[in-house]
Amino acid sequence: MIDGHGDDIFRYGNRVKVNFSTNIHQGVDHSGLMSHLASCPELLSNYPEPEPVSVEKKLSETYGIPVDNIIVTNGATDAIYLIARKMQGAMSAVVVPTFREYQDACAMYGHSVRFIQENEVYDEVLTVGNADVVWLCNPNNPTGRVFDREKLLKIIDANSDTLFVVDQAYADYSVVDVLTVQDVLSRHNVIMLQSLTKQFAVPGLRIGYAVASSEIVFGLRVMRMPWSVNSFAIKAAHYLLKYIDDYHVDKYQLHEEAMGISQAFRRLGIECLDTDCNFILCKLPKGNASRLKEWLMDRYGLLIRDASNFETLDNLYFRVAAQDHESNKLLIKCIEEWISL
Amino acid sequence: MIDGHGDDIFRYGNRVKVNFSTNIHQGVDHSGLMSHLASCPELLSNYPEPEPVSVEKKLSETYGIPVDNIIVTNGATDAIYLIARKMQGAMSAVVVPTFREYQDACAMYGHSVRFIQENEVYDEVLTVGNADVVWLCNPNNPTGRVFDREKLLKIIDANSDTLFVVDQAYADYSVVDVLTVQDVLSRHNVIMLQSLTKQFAVPGLRIGYAVASSEIVFGLRVMRMPWSVNSFAIKAAHYLLKYIDDYHVDKYQLHEEAMGISQAFRRLGIECLDTDCNFILCKLPKGNASRLKEWLMDRYGLLIRDASNFETLDNLYFRVAAQDHESNKLLIKCIEEWISL
Repeated sequence: MIDGHGDDIFRYGNRVKVNFSTNIHQGVDHSGLMSHLASCPELLSNYPEPEPVSVEKKLSETYGIPVDNIIVTNGATDAIYLIARKMQGAMSAVVVPTFREYQDACAMYGHSVRFIQENEVYDEVLTVGNADVVWLCNPNNPTGRVFDREKLLKIIDANSDTLFVVDQAYADYSVVDVLTVQDVLSRHNVIMLQSLTKQFAVPGLRIGYAVASSEIVFGLRVMRMPWSVNSFAIKAAHYLLKYIDDYHVDKYQLHEEAMGISQAFRRLGIECLDTDCNFILCKLPKGNASRLKEWLMDRYGLLIRDASNFETLDNLYFRVAAQDHESNKLLIKCIEEWISL
Repeated sequence: MIDGHGDDIFRYGNRVKVNFSTNIHQGVDHSGLMSHLASCPELLSNYPEPEPVSVEKKLSETYGIPVDNIIVTNGATDAIYLIARKMQGAMSAVVVPTFREYQDACAMYGHSVRFIQENEVYDEVLTVGNADVVWLCNPNNPTGRVFDREKLLKIIDANSDTLFVVDQAYADYSVVDVLTVQDVLSRHNVIMLQSLTKQFAVPGLRIGYAVASSEIVFGLRVMRMPWSVNSFAIKAAHYLLKYIDDYHVDKYQLHEEAMGISQAFRRLGIECLDTDCNFILCKLPKGNASRLKEWLMDRYGLLIRDASNFETLDNLYFRVAAQDHESNKLLIKCIEEWISL
C-alpha cells in the first residue's frame, strides 16, 4: 500500500457505538452465516480451491452473467491492482475526489496519472481522449453521486480506445440507474467492479469480482495468484448468494435518512453534497474535521470518516453514512453541540 | 495462476477418508479456534486492518524477531509473488524438483528461469553465480530433503550479489537443522518464507510471512495491497500464536512413520527418496501415478499426490505424507494390492 485511506474502526474496537465512517449498512444479522462457517472445520484444515471458480459459477447462475465474463478476486481492491498491473505504464485518468486505491494502484504500476474533477466529466467528451484508462466510482465515494447512465455510456462509446474501469461497489445503495451488466458486456472497453461487501455487509471477508469481456477477464485471470481468496470467503460467498433474498438493502430508506441528515447539517451551516445513495460528503464552515472526529469518538463513541485525505479535499471535509433513524438523530444532536462549542 | 499444482482435495470433498496428498499433518483439533472465530461477528461486519501489522507485532513478540524484519502476507504464496515482482525481469535459478509457484511467479514477472537439480546445488558454488535470485524450498517439496545448513550458508555467502529465497514453510516438520532466523538476519541477501499453515495445520486461512533484512521487508511492504489478509486469518493468527504451546507438531514421530512407509514401499519395488521430514517422494517401477491415485481414491478414499507435474518428474512419481500409524498401514496394504493387480 502506498498511501493511507480512512476506514480505521480497527483502531477503536469496542469503543465505537455507532460507525458512520463506513459506507456499509450496519445491523445485518450474520448469525446464520457465522454458524454455517463454524460448522465447517475443513475451512481451516483444507486448502481452498486454488482459483475461486466455484464462486464464479455461483455468481454466473445468480446474476445470469456468463462465467467467462466474471473474475472473483480477494476483494474488489485485488481487481483494481490486477487491472493497474495489466495496464502497467498506462496514461490513467482518475475522476476525483474518489477512493484512494485507483491512484495508488496506478502509482504502483508506473502509470502517469491525471485527475478529472467529478463535475467536469460531462463537460467535454474529449476530456478523457488521451487516457488509456479512466477510473471512476459509481456511485462515487465520497461524494455519493451517480454518473448519468446515458451520458456515461456516450463518453465510453466516444472513446473506444480507452478502458473504463467503473467501480460499482456501491451500486446496491444507489437510488438512480447505474450501468447494467448488459451495458458492460455489449462493450469491449468497460470493466465493472463489484463486491459482496456492500450488499451483504461483509467487508471483513474480502470477496469482490469484476465483470468484463471474456478477453479482459482471461487476461486478468492469468495474472491472479493461486489461493488468493481464502476458504472462509469462498464458503461465505456460496452461503450469501444462496440466501440472497434474506439480504435486502433498503436503499430508499437509507437514502431518505441521508437526505434527513443533509437537511439538518445544512441548517447548522455544514455544506452537504446532494447524494444518490446512503452516504454524504460534508464540509464544515470552519474548523477541522479530524478534531470533530476525535471529539465525537471520545465523547459519544460515534465514528465519522475524516475525508481530508481524498484528492482535492481538505481538512474541512468529512463523510457520514446514514444509519438507523435514532442513531442519525444522535449524530445530528452531537454535531450541533460541537458546532455551538 | 499460470500452471497447475497438486492439492486438489477440494475436488473430492467428503469422499476423502485419509488425505495423504497434503504435506500438512492431519487430525488437529480446531474446535477451540473455530469457536473463537464464531464468537466474533465483527470479522464479517468490519474491514480488517489494511495492513496486518498487528500480526507482524505478534510474530515479533512470539519469535523474538524485530518487527521491521517481518512482512505478513496472504499466504506464503503472496510473498513469493511479491518477491518475483520486486525482482521483475531478473535471472532466476530454481532448485528442482520443487513447488511450482516459484517458477510460475518468475514467469509472471518476466524472469528468465533456469533450473538447478537439487543434488547439484553443492557440487559447485559457482553454479548460482549468474543468477540474480535463487529459489529453494527447505525442506524441499516434494523430495522432503533439507539442504545442509553449513553448505547452504557457504553458498549464500559466496554469492553475496544473489538473493536467496529460502522457503522454510515445512521447517516445523524437519528433523535436521534448517536456517535459523539469525542466519537470515545477519545477511543482506536471504529471504526466509514461513507460514502458519504447516505448524498449525490451517491451509484454508492463507497467512504466511517472510523474514529478511529491514531494507528488503520495507521494499516488499510498499508493494503489498491493502486488505490483502482477511479478518478471519488475522484473528486466527492471534489465537494460534497465543496458544502456540497447544499446537505441538511431533515431527520425530511423523518422520518415523515416513521411514516406515518408505521401507514398506521399497519392498514393493517403489523407489523412495530419503526424507528429512514427514513426506516422501516415491517412484513406481512402472505404470502411472495418476491411475494409482484414482484407484486409491475410488476404491478406498485415500488421496495421494500425483507428482508428475513437478519440473523434471514424470508420471511414475507420487508423493505421500505420513499420517497416523493405522492410516499408513492401510495405505501400504492398498498399494500392495494395486501393485499385485
